[in-house]
Amino acid sequence: MATEYLGIDVGGTNVKMGIVEAQTGKLSNFYSHDTASWRKSGHFVERLGDAIAIQLAENKGVEKCGIGVPGLITRDRTTLVEITAIPEIDGTPIIPYLKERFPKCDFFLENDANAAALGEYYFGEDEEIPEDYIMVTLGTGVGGAAIIDKQVFKGGGGNAMEPGHVPSKNGKVLERNIGKNELLDLANKMRANYTGKTQLPGDGTISTTGLVAAAAEGDELALQIFSEVGEMLGNALVSMIRILDITTILVGGGLSASFDYIMPAINKQLEYWLTPYYLKTLVIKKATLGNDAGLLGAASLCF
Amino acid sequence: MATEYLGIDVGGTNVKMGIVEAQTGKLSNFYSHDTASWRKSGHFVERLGDAIAIQLAENKGVEKCGIGVPGLITRDRTTLVEITAIPEIDGTPIIPYLKERFPKCDFFLENDANAAALGEYYFGEDEEIPEDYIMVTLGTGVGGAAIIDKQVFKGGGGNAMEPGHVPSKNGKVLERNIGKNELLDLANKMRANYTGKTQLPGDGTISTTGLVAAAAEGDELALQIFSEVGEMLGNALVSMIRILDITTILVGGGLSASFDYIMPAINKQLEYWLTPYYLKTLVIKKATLGNDAGLLGAASLCF
Repeated sequence: MATEYLGIDVGGTNVKMGIVEAQTGKLSNFYSHDTASWRKSGHFVERLGDAIAIQLAENKGVEKCGIGVPGLITRDRTTLVEITAIPEIDGTPIIPYLKERFPKCDFFLENDANAAALGEYYFGEDEEIPEDYIMVTLGTGVGGAAIIDKQVFKGGGGNAMEPGHVPSKNGKVLERNIGKNELLDLANKMRANYTGKTQLPGDGTISTTGLVAAAAEGDELALQIFSEVGEMLGNALVSMIRILDITTILVGGGLSASFDYIMPAINKQLEYWLTPYYLKTLVIKKATLGNDAGLLGAASLCF
Repeated sequence: MATEYLGIDVGGTNVKMGIVEAQTGKLSNFYSHDTASWRKSGHFVERLGDAIAIQLAENKGVEKCGIGVPGLITRDRTTLVEITAIPEIDGTPIIPYLKERFPKCDFFLENDANAAALGEYYFGEDEEIPEDYIMVTLGTGVGGAAIIDKQVFKGGGGNAMEPGHVPSKNGKVLERNIGKNELLDLANKMRANYTGKTQLPGDGTISTTGLVAAAAEGDELALQIFSEVGEMLGNALVSMIRILDITTILVGGGLSASFDYIMPAINKQLEYWLTPYYLKTLVIKKATLGNDAGLLGAASLCF
């Protein structure tokens, strides 16, 4: 029988879980529950345990379960520290609790961005992923993770890799410059000062979809906007490359749709700052896992 | 009998070695040979081996030897990759060579900055060093290392932690802004534009010693100059802290004499950029090992 893992992606809106076939990443028994109602019950972790009980009862062969959570956890990966979206579970020793309730199952806890990054190694479509890489996710915030020797890099305190919070331009951290809302603010501001021809609306209603579509059609202003983003992201990547000595970068998240349009400016920065030691092995590519990245990433913790 | 290690610090000017008592860091049998004459012989590694042979013959109890080298090495720590000061040994599998010649001794190879950082843990005067810390060395260049779980952090390719080469102000990397020569350029430039009272010479001959002395006496301009340095260093430290989740920083190197005068500006940056999660455990202090840091660091690789 094929090895199967239970993957659980705890999110601020939904908790998603499912059985993942280890060799293929095939997903079955998908179950999603809204986070709010479990929070309201005052027993979030117990309700999560109930859902796990059902999954394990229906899938007797499953002996390992990986859980991704949106926040800080202890270095030994047993206890929740700071889960901003579900603060009432902060401090919960979730792994000892689950292990006691399900003694035959092994549980693995990880930050969700770290889990998603690891998922790319085991379940991504890209078959040339090396054992060391940095993943950066572009969305409302800018998240990140590093995988070193096929393991999540924890750093010193256990919560390494916060690229969204490194110093960037204008006295702001990176994600306050290139996060989704900041990107749209920048776009609307550049549009207001732009006198050339552009298909972007001038009434302050530029959307990320519209911006990507315009760039795809060669709109000069849209390309200039993404060039600004690429320059700031490129600078932060250089710092990470010099500190971690990792030269494969995956870019994921909703805004990675802009990948092709931010890449020229990123490459310009990398070529300006880095030496041949890094450039000769440097590869930047899009992450391949889509909506299921969190759940597959959680399951990949079981390897 | 006390455990003793052979420590070797390969430098561009001298190769220093000595027997280090593991518990106390007491140094004996110190020997220094100029690097140039071994280079001229065309058999650098063999001459180094001869010197090791004498040390091992004179100290029969020594079964471990640590070697620090000024450059890049392979991730498995067996082979020299890029030793800028002694390029003819690039590519040499130095550990297999020494192991074959001295089968009873175990050899450990590391980059010299990494070794010096580890030495602070085992031999530093500071008894409160945690198992995770960042070390930054200020001198002609800006070097660095991270120790995680009492181990040198190697990163992906094996040569992590190049803080001197992260992007800084004015399109320059950090060490091209605050390295010794750049610091003096900055000082002379700020002196030329300064109309206040200062004891710094206005003829372009400011020295680092003079600068530190002036700051110690409260010279406003000298303090302003170090404030500029602290601001740039502080920004780079924030990136490292966010990427590595390490909150103990040691500052070493010749220019760490300016520690007290760069600290106010560093602290200002850290308080501006970091959140309580980091600030509550943040400690920045001077490294304690002086001239013997390289040799003691090399010996500490044997632990």
